[in-house]
Amino acid sequence: MSPNRPSLTTERLEALSDGVIAIAATLLVLEIGRVELRDDESLFHAIIDLWPSLTAYLVSFTVIALIWVAHHSMFERISSVDRPLLFLNLALLLAIGFIPWPTSVLADYIDEGGTDAAVATALYSLTMTLIGIVFVGMWAHLVRHPERTDGVTEAQLRRSLRLAAVSPVVYGVTIGLAFVSPYLCLAVYAGLAVYFARGPSARAMLADQADDTTSG
Amino acid sequence: MSPNRPSLTTERLEALSDGVIAIAATLLVLEIGRVELRDDESLFHAIIDLWPSLTAYLVSFTVIALIWVAHHSMFERISSVDRPLLFLNLALLLAIGFIPWPTSVLADYIDEGGTDAAVATALYSLTMTLIGIVFVGMWAHLVRHPERTDGVTEAQLRRSLRLAAVSPVVYGVTIGLAFVSPYLCLAVYAGLAVYFARGPSARAMLADQADDTTSG
Amino acid sequence: MSPNRPSLTTERLEALSDGVIAIAATLLVLEIGRVELRDDESLFHAIIDLWPSLTAYLVSFTVIALIWVAHHSMFERISSVDRPLLFLNLALLLAIGFIPWPTSVLADYIDEGGTDAAVATALYSLTMTLIGIVFVGMWAHLVRHPERTDGVTEAQLRRSLRLAAVSPVVYGVTIGLAFVSPYLCLAVYAGLAVYFARGPSARAMLADQADDTTSG
Amino acid sequence: MSPNRPSLTTERLEALSDGVIAIAATLLVLEIGRVELRDDESLFHAIIDLWPSLTAYLVSFTVIALIWVAHHSMFERISSVDRPLLFLNLALLLAIGFIPWPTSVLADYIDEGGTDAAVATALYSLTMTLIGIVFVGMWAHLVRHPERTDGVTEAQLRRSLRLAAVSPVVYGVTIGLAFVSPYLCLAVYAGLAVYFARGPSARAMLADQADDTTSG
Repeated sequence: MSPNRPSLTTERLEALSDGVIAIAATLLVLEIGRVELRDDESLFHAIIDLWPSLTAYLVSFTVIALIWVAHHSMFERISSVDRPLLFLNLALLLAIGFIPWPTSVLADYIDEGGTDAAVATALYSLTMTLIGIVFVGMWAHLVRHPERTDGVTEAQLRRSLRLAAVSPVVYGVTIGLAFVSPYLCLAVYAGLAVYFARGPSARAMLADQADDTTSG
Repeated sequence: MSPNRPSLTTERLEALSDGVIAIAATLLVLEIGRVELRDDESLFHAIIDLWPSLTAYLVSFTVIALIWVAHHSMFERISSVDRPLLFLNLALLLAIGFIPWPTSVLADYIDEGGTDAAVATALYSLTMTLIGIVFVGMWAHLVRHPERTDGVTEAQLRRSLRLAAVSPVVYGVTIGLAFVSPYLCLAVYAGLAVYFARGPSARAMLADQADDTTSG
Repeated sequence: MSPNRPSLTTERLEALSDGVIAIAATLLVLEIGRVELRDDESLFHAIIDLWPSLTAYLVSFTVIALIWVAHHSMFERISSVDRPLLFLNLALLLAIGFIPWPTSVLADYIDEGGTDAAVATALYSLTMTLIGIVFVGMWAHLVRHPERTDGVTEAQLRRSLRLAAVSPVVYGVTIGLAFVSPYLCLAVYAGLAVYFARGPSARAMLADQADDTTSG
Repeated sequence: MSPNRPSLTTERLEALSDGVIAIAATLLVLEIGRVELRDDESLFHAIIDLWPSLTAYLVSFTVIALIWVAHHSMFERISSVDRPLLFLNLALLLAIGFIPWPTSVLADYIDEGGTDAAVATALYSLTMTLIGIVFVGMWAHLVRHPERTDGVTEAQLRRSLRLAAVSPVVYGVTIGLAFVSPYLCLAVYAGLAVYFARGPSARAMLADQADDTTSG
């Protein structure tokens, strides 16, 4: 098999991953649920009161989109999949497919205040921490097995590993922070999203950056 | 990379978009819900009474299908994706994945009359306006960066931009129109659907039109 | 564009169709719903009592699988898509994406007897009739535009049209038959499934039949 | 058609299968449901009490992921699809798409104890047994029709058939075992998952094993 194009398994695993990612993101909308009015409540106020569900949709859809960017960026460098990569990737999909549930718990309880709001936020942070750890595991495996990648130096792989480690560390901190202020956690999630949107995994897959490099 | 074929990122982003679009369209059916009979109501009358849900399914499925046509037509001309295009496209998917929710709100409240019917219709119009604005943003970016397209003149890109602007303008007007007559908004949605089905973005992707041009 | 391979639009339209078909089939399982026991009812009896839902899942999944076979078989012969084909295909997807709803109505009411069981069955038959009519419309369009197909004689297209017409005619008859006996309709659905599973659209896409022809 | 690459039908059938598999896996999360607190129950305890649903998600997602591995591994060896393979594969998809339902029944009743827990577990085992039997049927067909495969000896096909037979036999035993101890069945499911994750169908699709063979 040519080292310059991904193997069939790599393509199929990426297609399966894209499928699960697209479905998990699109299922998020079901979490918002039907709007039911209480007594003389107006629909307008009922929709405003749903802000936690609407925010949770926004946050989780954005997170899943950034996971897609990170995953796609990683697989652009992988030329063949071995058993640890296969099962780490399946574990990643298991965790991504799970996101709609902590999202609905977060939406239902962040507005309740007290320990329940903290637990809901901590559950969300825990899910994201686990996803981050699996990503770190995949990059660590690639650092030890650079022959599974294609045209990537070990220094670049180590750099990707360090950058990937930011996610579980920050999300891990928000597990504790949830018990201080759930809303502060939401702000950290937003900050992390901006960091990754501006970051190197998005850059790696984009034509403008590649052009910059070529012409630089 | 050859300028004549889309880059890997372009293909993958289009595949992800197709996935989210197909799932959002197919999830619409869940909005109709189980049929539950009240007292001595017959199933026939219960189904007839569901006309707002059935109409909402019809309208939203058609809108999503036309979004697919417009998206596909745009990506046929894009040769490489840069960061603004990537994130505009992800924002587009976030809004498309959201469509089933305003659809269910519209179905539940358009028949109620009064302010609630107006708010439900305005929410639907607002969602579609936002989607239209993202499309305009993408075309505007392509006008400024024609090097991201392939075999398209700047005049053609400007024409696509002008045509894309019709959608958020008309949908934007229906946000206000919702407070006059929700049913009139439904008629405008239908008219807009016919306009886009007959319009140039559908034409651009079709063999018959290309043939006409070639033989013309 | 080479007449020997499908155009980009054809491939993309087939991919979108496959997505909607796969999702509609897999959403069917949601119709069965959670099992809730009444009083001292055992889980075993509750599952047995769910036979209409289980049968409806079986019937609709089989029907959707056969629609996939028919659709795939048709598109193997289409070399380019024009506007009528595009919009007939989108109408087909709208109707396929709708299938989970008449399936759940059939499951909920076929066991009720009387007019409600008849109406539920007639609704299911009507949905399938409409799908069949769209298929007939697509074949009729191809008969009039054989230049959209690839290596297919007009005689073969006419034969496909005649065979496709069986489906809406038989399903159409079951709309009336539903008011005589819903269970008899189930038997007709099963017979029609066997007919199509053994029929030429399945044959057209299969290697063994092609081999038979070659060696015959 | 070249014997060295899969036919269009093979590719399309595998794509449809991947779609149904990805959707079935991702729909599993809906089974967990919204968390509703009783009286003074804390969210933390409510989540802990959901362990059967969380375990069921984990088990079924893992099983579906391993089915994907087995299916993908089988189709890597299939060069053309005939009618029995097509319909066996569609029957497989029907059973895979069904998995979310026995999963939700298992989650709802395994904690109830008594006959209901046993019936729920037996239903789950039965579903998996049927899936295993369809896989055996597909391998048995390939043993009798090695011309449908590509570069695989009959001995290898027979070995795949024997290995595939492990699954329905073990799952079949757990149908009875469910009436002794549902929890013991969960342990057997886990053991079977480890067996298949370490087993030859995963190996067949992986680069490291191929490398081992080449260098061995």
